[in-house]
Amino acid sequence: MSLTPAASKTPPAHAPMNQFAAGDGELRIGGMPLTRLAARVGQTPFYAIDRSVVAARVAELRAALPPAVKLHYAMKANPMPALVGHLVGLVDGIDVASAGELKVALDAGADPRHISFAGPGKRDAELRQAVAAGILVNLESAREIAPLAQASQALGLPARVAVRVNPDFELKSSGMKMGGGPRPFGVDAERVPAVLAEIGRAGLAFEGFHLFAGSQNLKAEAIVDAQRRSFELALRLAEAAPAPLRFLNLGGGFGIPYFPGEQRLELAPVAANLAAIAADTARLLPQAELVIELGRYLVGEAGIYVCRVLDRKVSRGHVYLVTDGGLHHHLSASGNFGQVLRKNYPLAIGNRMGEAGQETVSVVGPLCTPLDLLGDRVLLPAAQAGDLVVVFQSGAYGASASPQAFLGHPPALEVLV
Amino acid sequence: MSLTPAASKTPPAHAPMNQFAAGDGELRIGGMPLTRLAARVGQTPFYAIDRSVVAARVAELRAALPPAVKLHYAMKANPMPALVGHLVGLVDGIDVASAGELKVALDAGADPRHISFAGPGKRDAELRQAVAAGILVNLESAREIAPLAQASQALGLPARVAVRVNPDFELKSSGMKMGGGPRPFGVDAERVPAVLAEIGRAGLAFEGFHLFAGSQNLKAEAIVDAQRRSFELALRLAEAAPAPLRFLNLGGGFGIPYFPGEQRLELAPVAANLAAIAADTARLLPQAELVIELGRYLVGEAGIYVCRVLDRKVSRGHVYLVTDGGLHHHLSASGNFGQVLRKNYPLAIGNRMGEAGQETVSVVGPLCTPLDLLGDRVLLPAAQAGDLVVVFQSGAYGASASPQAFLGHPPALEVLV
Repeated sequence: MSLTPAASKTPPAHAPMNQFAAGDGELRIGGMPLTRLAARVGQTPFYAIDRSVVAARVAELRAALPPAVKLHYAMKANPMPALVGHLVGLVDGIDVASAGELKVALDAGADPRHISFAGPGKRDAELRQAVAAGILVNLESAREIAPLAQASQALGLPARVAVRVNPDFELKSSGMKMGGGPRPFGVDAERVPAVLAEIGRAGLAFEGFHLFAGSQNLKAEAIVDAQRRSFELALRLAEAAPAPLRFLNLGGGFGIPYFPGEQRLELAPVAANLAAIAADTARLLPQAELVIELGRYLVGEAGIYVCRVLDRKVSRGHVYLVTDGGLHHHLSASGNFGQVLRKNYPLAIGNRMGEAGQETVSVVGPLCTPLDLLGDRVLLPAAQAGDLVVVFQSGAYGASASPQAFLGHPPALEVLV
Repeated sequence: MSLTPAASKTPPAHAPMNQFAAGDGELRIGGMPLTRLAARVGQTPFYAIDRSVVAARVAELRAALPPAVKLHYAMKANPMPALVGHLVGLVDGIDVASAGELKVALDAGADPRHISFAGPGKRDAELRQAVAAGILVNLESAREIAPLAQASQALGLPARVAVRVNPDFELKSSGMKMGGGPRPFGVDAERVPAVLAEIGRAGLAFEGFHLFAGSQNLKAEAIVDAQRRSFELALRLAEAAPAPLRFLNLGGGFGIPYFPGEQRLELAPVAANLAAIAADTARLLPQAELVIELGRYLVGEAGIYVCRVLDRKVSRGHVYLVTDGGLHHHLSASGNFGQVLRKNYPLAIGNRMGEAGQETVSVVGPLCTPLDLLGDRVLLPAAQAGDLVVVFQSGAYGASASPQAFLGHPPALEVLV
């Protein structure tokens, strides 16, 4: 059954949250009605990720993309161990951002050959852990070469490296720009040949390139453009490589719709472009594995955040649903994580899914701060204490990206259903 | 010795960070040179709070304010247990925002008679804990009356309550407005008489009022105005009270300077006004204890965040100091916690305090996101890998207000020196 959040009645609307079913007035996650799931979890607030929605998203990508394109999960989006374990069985590799994430990936059974590690400030101890694990390090700075060579020598193991390139262009219309101009990320494209020579001299095992121009992009043509230019840049840079390319990570950047007026990314043009790039790769870089790396796009739409209405409070004519959840669990939904203008995530009353929107309310949390706002003047069914507020699009950058200790409230539980 | 961060050379400047000494080129915290302190802590990044700076701030307030004004610490600003323990010995009471904070306050030895509990979304279990502890509950909604009465009956203990009032005015020039118009906080002033009657009928132990119009205000005249109007409102509302006022919390809102151009709050006019209010209180509400409640103002300037430079990286002519610290430990300093325009906190290279500013750099962290920025184009002494970056004004809303699990890096340690 297709769901349209009540807020969609006022233009511009949220994209329909039709990745989940509903029935008998209840949202269903993993096939289970929400009130039963809340009882199973035993507390609110909680995050719930629907494993079948994650699998469906991966299947959709597999169907669209040529088989030569390998799919990696960037686990920074959601490092929940059970979810990483689920994805290890679905994707071709895992990208980690720290030694802490590396531990989770290895515990989840990810094959070290297909784990890569990116991040601009890797500590020497982390580089040593990476060499010991046998994973691929995406080199962000020439500084990393010496400690990698030392670790390699001390451990008697090869230090596998790819060079993360700071391109000389940027991803247009991106939520976050991460390439072009001066950046803390990667090696400036024009300096790559010198760094490649240094890698060769240090005896590191060079495997390829990592290019990542931005994230949370909803415009297919911008992604197509960035991937095409990334590929061409990699081709140029490969001429200076000390060994044939075995690995080419073109990044991700696929966005999901969060706010009113945003539409889902059109996958077909991106897939067609990747098919052309895969054909070029087979011809021009025959030993290279072509990888795209997705975080939010794989898991963001599969997750919801659920909190319970504690009080329906009317102050000077305005209705507040005061809940037990808030920015301490879900900073992004409160609009306080780097957003310039606060906008509402799609919301619903998860146990009143059939009911028409009846009142305009603000959804707030238990914190003593006006920042603790999950929904600002949202049209929702008339809710009462005990009802369950659902924040959609919450499978990525939720619990792990929030200040859970703030004000001493209990952390949110996370379940994979 | 007075310190002026290098950034103060470019107008507008940061307020001088003269709450700390420096000598032999090193910042001193609790009298200890920073490199020695870092060795004692055993890791970077860390937060360090100077207990003598906290004590000096309390002493400054005690000297300025009439003795009748009681000083409470709002521990939401920094719930570090050792710091709360230190403050229990210095102030007259503790304000908590959750049952989690209540536990820390009680563990620290705070007297339950002088603990108050505010927050718009208190769970029934928390209200019961509050009654069992014997603390004062700042009632935010009529909804809290029934569970408090039930807990009181079940436990055979009085339920001590004050009514948090949503005033009919707001604190001008405030970083955060929390009163006036419709709000999730407190009981609308015009509804207070009805709620007082309900409290009387339910047999709760009414003690007084809590008014809190905003926070992070650097304008003395705005605080004076808000406190005067809060007091007058409380006087009016006291006429409908079921018992004489024993408690009158006028809130806080005293700010500290974070950004270039901001000056420290002028305390004298605020103190003079509170002296007048204290005299009026003695005359008109003779049984009432007059309380102001401060969080950030007591601890914010006493704390620093320290991270180590891992890499001095030049990208297309721009210098990045890549550190092991970042937004996961200090979200506010990265500009991503509710700020609309990002501005720099005052920064220094803590082991190069004597050196003149020599280059304009950006200070970034280890996370794979452009949000991970602690200093944007700051003039600092030429720093190298191994140097210690200090972020001043970090004693409040630091570790506990940050997404420490983000990207799987280790949490920051916190020390009281």
